[in-house]
Amino acid sequence: MKTPSLIGLDWGTSVLRAYLLGEGGAVLASRSENWGIMHVPGGDFPAAYDAMTLAWREKWPGLPALSSGMVGSAQGWRHAPYCPCPSGVNDLAQAMVQVSLSDNCLLHIVPGLLLSGAVPDVIRGEETQIFGAMMSVPELAEDALFILPGSHSKWAVVRREKIVDFKTYMTGELFAALCEHTILGRPAREADAGKSTSEAFERGVCAIRDGGARGLSALLFSTRSLVLTQQLDAGDSLEYLSGLLIGEEIRCALPAGAPHLALIGARALCERYQRALVLFGSPTPRLVEDTAAKGLWEIARISGLLGV
Amino acid sequence: MKTPSLIGLDWGTSVLRAYLLGEGGAVLASRSENWGIMHVPGGDFPAAYDAMTLAWREKWPGLPALSSGMVGSAQGWRHAPYCPCPSGVNDLAQAMVQVSLSDNCLLHIVPGLLLSGAVPDVIRGEETQIFGAMMSVPELAEDALFILPGSHSKWAVVRREKIVDFKTYMTGELFAALCEHTILGRPAREADAGKSTSEAFERGVCAIRDGGARGLSALLFSTRSLVLTQQLDAGDSLEYLSGLLIGEEIRCALPAGAPHLALIGARALCERYQRALVLFGSPTPRLVEDTAAKGLWEIARISGLLGV
Repeated sequence: MKTPSLIGLDWGTSVLRAYLLGEGGAVLASRSENWGIMHVPGGDFPAAYDAMTLAWREKWPGLPALSSGMVGSAQGWRHAPYCPCPSGVNDLAQAMVQVSLSDNCLLHIVPGLLLSGAVPDVIRGEETQIFGAMMSVPELAEDALFILPGSHSKWAVVRREKIVDFKTYMTGELFAALCEHTILGRPAREADAGKSTSEAFERGVCAIRDGGARGLSALLFSTRSLVLTQQLDAGDSLEYLSGLLIGEEIRCALPAGAPHLALIGARALCERYQRALVLFGSPTPRLVEDTAAKGLWEIARISGLLGV
Repeated sequence: MKTPSLIGLDWGTSVLRAYLLGEGGAVLASRSENWGIMHVPGGDFPAAYDAMTLAWREKWPGLPALSSGMVGSAQGWRHAPYCPCPSGVNDLAQAMVQVSLSDNCLLHIVPGLLLSGAVPDVIRGEETQIFGAMMSVPELAEDALFILPGSHSKWAVVRREKIVDFKTYMTGELFAALCEHTILGRPAREADAGKSTSEAFERGVCAIRDGGARGLSALLFSTRSLVLTQQLDAGDSLEYLSGLLIGEEIRCALPAGAPHLALIGARALCERYQRALVLFGSPTPRLVEDTAAKGLWEIARISGLLGV
């Protein structure tokens, strides 16, 4: 194995990912556990950190360590107050906080960003992924719109290497709540599994696209009424609902004449967004993967943690 | 007690209400149980019906009986296929179905309405309340917009004594799912109970009103971000969320230059809608209560069940 230079962590709400990183942010090894900050065993952050990284730290003593994500929230291990938006990678590097570890090493924690105003917004973890994507695809650093689909989807505008604006859409969490805890999920639960079709997803997207300014609220119940009137198979109804919700996110968020458009995240979900974006007339957005490790590397490099 | 002429039931998804009705639909007695069609003890509709009405039927044998609501759905006691929209009270009266009871009497069941089209919609129970409101306030029968707030809010257009259009908004069910099963409910659950203010509700309504065509999707996360940035008390956050959701329903549903506007339903919820509608520039809508019994009476009268 090449010599590692950094331990990087992406420690979110539900998952903890640890990377052993070499030159340029190359991932030499990685581990993942469902130890997001709400699910750390016994709430013991130091123990979880040791379980993930101790073998690496014993083999390569003194490796610098850096984490992004919700671990720096008020509910995390150590509170890293938000940087104001706009901010660039230098601003993040200067605002990191530290946790002292039992072996006299430090874990550095990257802060999130706060967008102030009448409708404030916050981001914590995705900023590091965005800076990682800018490392992977340098032309995105000048003027781009990044979409990070998920439980809380983020749309972030980058200009001249700074995140200048962003907005959160609760699409994934809303989908889960609607499926599991409203009448809309029932037909699919009772139908044969695995019978859904991608046409139903696209039908939902197009219903929103063609539905005008009233948006989702006027169409949500159609997930049920189309099944009741035999115009939609019960097994397809959650694909249709997914299309409505992702379509609504795009209806609200996609600007006219979008700049470079990039999707960051898991491939299957990003491809779903790609299909929906194209239905809205967008050029096929670029898909950028594995951005957290690259972003952690870049922040560590800028902040002098790598000692080079 | 005056002589009763009709047993009327409003048998919905969650509640079963039974009325003993006298001349003109006057309520002589009433009972209510949480025996909606999804919660009938043992799934035994005849037993539930007997428990609610047998004392009345033994005292006044041969009383006609009529029910509206989800009891006529495919999941109910006897399926009463939908009438097409538009329909008037005569159409409903002619499309009733019957259940034979152990005492050789019949229970008549009022069908709901189906709005056909690319975005179909259904109503079952509310049509009877609307016809009841038209009995109570005759000027509403010519040209009015009825709002029935609830788990599934209905907005129905009446012209010349017929329901000519309607639409369902899942506002109440969405509010419950968001409060109980997403991150938006957490701050309020952890805050002191009973500390919420009506200003927070109005703030949510106004945020939607002033937010343009992007609507709720662009504002939902502000329920959290305003608390995180100390711009909204945690104890107020569900009032704010309620304002967002009711505001979004009104943004989508309220036509320019609305005709007579009437609210049907429980007083506290209707007053909440009244406040929100006024913030949207609407004249204060009229509030009509106890409309189910009146509507059942009218349908029974038209269909000849009353024998007069």
